[in-house]
Amino acid sequence: MKAVVLLSGGIDSTTTLAIAKSEGRECYALSYRYGQRHSIEIDAATWAARAMGVKDHLVLGLPLDRWGGSALTDHIAVPKDRDESMLSQDIPVTYVPARNTVFLAMALAWAETLGAKEIWIGVNALDYSGYPDCRPEFIKAFEEVAHLGTKAGIEEEEPLKIRTPLIHMTKAEIIRKGVDLGVDYAMTRSCYDPPSWEVACGRCDSCLLRKKGFAEAGIPDPTHYEA
Amino acid sequence: MKAVVLLSGGIDSTTTLAIAKSEGRECYALSYRYGQRHSIEIDAATWAARAMGVKDHLVLGLPLDRWGGSALTDHIAVPKDRDESMLSQDIPVTYVPARNTVFLAMALAWAETLGAKEIWIGVNALDYSGYPDCRPEFIKAFEEVAHLGTKAGIEEEEPLKIRTPLIHMTKAEIIRKGVDLGVDYAMTRSCYDPPSWEVACGRCDSCLLRKKGFAEAGIPDPTHYEA
Repeated sequence: MKAVVLLSGGIDSTTTLAIAKSEGRECYALSYRYGQRHSIEIDAATWAARAMGVKDHLVLGLPLDRWGGSALTDHIAVPKDRDESMLSQDIPVTYVPARNTVFLAMALAWAETLGAKEIWIGVNALDYSGYPDCRPEFIKAFEEVAHLGTKAGIEEEEPLKIRTPLIHMTKAEIIRKGVDLGVDYAMTRSCYDPPSWEVACGRCDSCLLRKKGFAEAGIPDPTHYEA
Repeated sequence: MKAVVLLSGGIDSTTTLAIAKSEGRECYALSYRYGQRHSIEIDAATWAARAMGVKDHLVLGLPLDRWGGSALTDHIAVPKDRDESMLSQDIPVTYVPARNTVFLAMALAWAETLGAKEIWIGVNALDYSGYPDCRPEFIKAFEEVAHLGTKAGIEEEEPLKIRTPLIHMTKAEIIRKGVDLGVDYAMTRSCYDPPSWEVACGRCDSCLLRKKGFAEAGIPDPTHYEA
């Protein structure tokens, strides 16, 4: 069965791709250059797509930096050293307005063209950054849009499903699952503000969640952190 | 009140902009180069945006032609001279997979950044081409996505509204409304396959619907048709 898999090159999307492969899906990986601060994550995604044998991998440009509004796409500093208890409490400046709606919409367009009946996305509602578009209720609402906004909805075909295998997992559980499936996390990248391909800042929310995940999983973190 | 208005340069979106202006909205017009066959509609949209005094007009690139799958974005012939009774019956090859989902998703991202609480779109469920993503149930589902997938959904703000003033109007009613509001339809473009800026083919579904609309409205059609 064909499936479109959103792939950003981080722990979550790479593990999601591994799970889709392990369930026998023919995977079409999709990454975006949306004006993010760096292209390191695209390099990581490209590596993962090749290493894990996807059928095709597209890297698409999306002009979300035309309006900015986020520390990831605009001249706004990435927060560092935030208290762990804050990470899931508020919506931080790294939130990119409507990003997952846009990412899923483009994935839906490709999926409909391919005849794929699934889109896989590594959203996570536990160890996440408080983004509204990572919650189960958002995913469910998007499935309804996917059904009604495509031929399937008029022709009464089986609706497309949004698969979110990580949604109720902790970061530690995700890492353990990925290691079981043979994912090499040394090639994934999480940092919002990396000094280079080899080094992560170690202080942004995403680095803090990554460190915590490996620590709780009891698995050595292969990342080189600056701090 | 700020509003994002999707503007393609045709009758429907130009009339929608006129209605939004007449209701006192501060309009932010949004057009897309999504790999469509020609850029004539972008020129028409740019003209309308200037003539009607929008606050800003963005023309964004969207790579929907990376996968094609439509007569508007791929090497597929635009159907001509179809019987009028067929126009609302099936989903034609001019359907672009998930186009309105993608268009609304990008509009949502801009709206959230601007603090706009409305997106206006000229979809129409009567004299339309049978596209799934023009139906009221699709629009309602997207409103739910817009609410849950943005800060508004978490911060319990008033949800963004998708305004569809034309959804239950015939093409003739739309044209009469636009004329009342001072829209100059000579500068709008509807043709899917125009030989030039000045001339429309007169035989594609969109030209046929336009001709029928002006005829039923009893208003002279300013368009120069090749046939």
